[in-house]
Amino acid sequence: MPVLASTPVRVVDLIRRKRDSGELSPEEIKFLIAGYTSGDIPDYQMAAWLMAAWIRGLNAAELAALTEAMLHSGRVLDWSDLPAPKVDKHSTGGVGDKTSIILAPVVAAAGLYVPMISGRGLGHTGGTLDKLESIAGFNVNLSLPEFRRVLTECKCGLIGQTQEIAPADKKIYALRDVTGTVDNPSLICASIMSKKLAEGIDALVLDVKTGSGAFMKKTEDAEYLAGLMVETGKRMGKKVVALITDMDQPLGRTAGNAMEIAECIDVLAGAGPADLRELCLELAGWMFFLGQRTPNVADGRRLAGEVIASGRAHDKFREIVRLQGGDARVVDEPKRLPQARAKVDVTAASAGFVAAIDCEKLGIACGVLGGGREKKEDKIDPAVGLEFHRRLGDRVERGAPLATLHYNGDARLAEARQLVESSYRIGDKAPAARPLVHKVIGG
Amino acid sequence: MPVLASTPVRVVDLIRRKRDSGELSPEEIKFLIAGYTSGDIPDYQMAAWLMAAWIRGLNAAELAALTEAMLHSGRVLDWSDLPAPKVDKHSTGGVGDKTSIILAPVVAAAGLYVPMISGRGLGHTGGTLDKLESIAGFNVNLSLPEFRRVLTECKCGLIGQTQEIAPADKKIYALRDVTGTVDNPSLICASIMSKKLAEGIDALVLDVKTGSGAFMKKTEDAEYLAGLMVETGKRMGKKVVALITDMDQPLGRTAGNAMEIAECIDVLAGAGPADLRELCLELAGWMFFLGQRTPNVADGRRLAGEVIASGRAHDKFREIVRLQGGDARVVDEPKRLPQARAKVDVTAASAGFVAAIDCEKLGIACGVLGGGREKKEDKIDPAVGLEFHRRLGDRVERGAPLATLHYNGDARLAEARQLVESSYRIGDKAPAARPLVHKVIGG
Repeated sequence: MPVLASTPVRVVDLIRRKRDSGELSPEEIKFLIAGYTSGDIPDYQMAAWLMAAWIRGLNAAELAALTEAMLHSGRVLDWSDLPAPKVDKHSTGGVGDKTSIILAPVVAAAGLYVPMISGRGLGHTGGTLDKLESIAGFNVNLSLPEFRRVLTECKCGLIGQTQEIAPADKKIYALRDVTGTVDNPSLICASIMSKKLAEGIDALVLDVKTGSGAFMKKTEDAEYLAGLMVETGKRMGKKVVALITDMDQPLGRTAGNAMEIAECIDVLAGAGPADLRELCLELAGWMFFLGQRTPNVADGRRLAGEVIASGRAHDKFREIVRLQGGDARVVDEPKRLPQARAKVDVTAASAGFVAAIDCEKLGIACGVLGGGREKKEDKIDPAVGLEFHRRLGDRVERGAPLATLHYNGDARLAEARQLVESSYRIGDKAPAARPLVHKVIGG
Repeated sequence: MPVLASTPVRVVDLIRRKRDSGELSPEEIKFLIAGYTSGDIPDYQMAAWLMAAWIRGLNAAELAALTEAMLHSGRVLDWSDLPAPKVDKHSTGGVGDKTSIILAPVVAAAGLYVPMISGRGLGHTGGTLDKLESIAGFNVNLSLPEFRRVLTECKCGLIGQTQEIAPADKKIYALRDVTGTVDNPSLICASIMSKKLAEGIDALVLDVKTGSGAFMKKTEDAEYLAGLMVETGKRMGKKVVALITDMDQPLGRTAGNAMEIAECIDVLAGAGPADLRELCLELAGWMFFLGQRTPNVADGRRLAGEVIASGRAHDKFREIVRLQGGDARVVDEPKRLPQARAKVDVTAASAGFVAAIDCEKLGIACGVLGGGREKKEDKIDPAVGLEFHRRLGDRVERGAPLATLHYNGDARLAEARQLVESSYRIGDKAPAARPLVHKVIGG
């Protein structure tokens, strides 16, 4: 059994201490994470510790130590030779949440570096990597030297987590998934922040979702997690801000991999749905401000608008797609993206107002159509998805289309359709409007 | 991942339920234990569940279900063809606690069956099996058919836990040991009761120790555990009583494997220290009463005294030793037991009264001399141990011997001596006398 070099502390004592609501020193946490990553500490001891930590909690010092230990379990990328600040954005995930694909080219087109390491769809939410892979040839599995080449040439790149980046997080995340220890703010915070800080960035904008389509349904839970992440990032010398943003309905007009890429291209071309465009401007504004590209957020928003209006963001996206091996023609001809063979509308059963949307269910429906995975090994159908015609508070007549399902097979169509139908509640009154950005934490 | 046949419950959901202080159904607990025993449920999921159960607790129904599932994970012995009740005694462990070796022959000599499955030393406490093995040739690893033969012939037998008996307990205990989930009353109760009820007994007398040499130092903790065990046993249709007995000082005059066997032979021969003899009479009284051999405990005590005075208990012990392959001459000539080569006294540094004894430390000292294991693979020296000359409240002069260390090697003698010295506190006043039996629960 591994023991700390300097003191005869055994793993079982660290488990017992956390079980009894005690505190672990940074050295002890480092020992635990290093031992688990190397395989010296077995899964069952880590599982017991994670459950104790889930129930008893971690204090701010423990959380910072955990994040740092996970961050340093692998390579921390270093772009200090590149001549401008490096910034990134991370979202806790939602339905139709596609801002990364717009923000990376917008921010890079204005001169900052965006070394973006993204994820796949998780549960009911979509993932940036899955969306990008709906572009024929687009390679998200660049090696680190390839990533550097792309980043150097076009100032941004979008890849998945490599073996070298925060391997402790990869291993711990897989264990949490099967031991009932996923949904804990401290463990979520350490997972996100260790990966993001390993990217070697100077500043990070966090988009913490709240509402029926978010993992944190309640705003106070989202705010708590946001506070932890901002504090942890700041402790580690990074500029971090968190925007609590709305996920009580899908973001934009589509959910589905190729459909969302097309929507991103719309926004980059100066069009696209108002909510998606607005959130991108706000997030880009913060990225420019934290990356010292503009003296304030308002100027950052304006700069983002200009970069889009001038076509430079659209050009930048074409450049990224080309450099990562994708068919760059889609950027100008989105019809080249995979298209589903059939469509069917879901309509309002009665007249009234869209009173509530169970946004998580819409995400599940998209998965049922083939747009997401239920098991790790499932293959995604990039063409399928949902198109949304009505937003919260919209007036609808009986029989008016609420959403359109784009599908390729009938097998689970009825199930998906039923999910979409039951996601919408039509009522007599429009609900109180929710802001797109609820709050800014750490700004 | 295994799922319950009747419902689509996944292991991770059972972990999450317990994590959130929820209750598991008997069917779910059975599924968990059966799956873990078969290897379908991995260690890391069981570790997470055990930690959740340790922190959140189990209610009475869950505890009964857990005990029953562990009990039925292997063979439940059936002695219904043997023509008298089957009774046993179990102790939670202490220093110098050797009553099993006296009780088995006493109770068997009076006509009840005692199919005793015992343990090895654990932590600072001694174990019946280790003590018996200090008799040359004594075999505690009988197969179940051999055990039946011995039991049929002499009405008692003393063996270790076989692979067939409660394998779930064996596997879970090993996991608890390395995941910080040992010292929880419900988990301890399920472990003890599943093993004991698998013995196929009709009645069980529990000796739950309390004081400085017990695992449960506080009387209220001992009482809580005793209550759980009595309730669990009764739910399963067994006669069970628990005596909360004193372990604030060693039981009898010795701790050490061969030395304790010699002391047992003394008691069986009608002599021996008063406290040990008294506790054996009381426990035997309860065994006779619960086993319906006597109409009450007082008559049971008297019967035990008669069986000893008549020499029948001594004869019975000779018979057991012979049937289990041991050198039966030691029963009449205890000097044939292994003897340590050297002795040294620990004396009182000042005059006064023995005010307190750290009994756990004395047990550790015995282990340091070689009488116990620090690692599973350590070999025990049967000859070494401690001889106690003074009890709590005894008046001592400066320089009077408190204890004698019997040892075979100098390597760790100083360490053992220091432990013994620091175990005794000499004060101005005798402490309030503690009863040998604090309380009877479930009687």
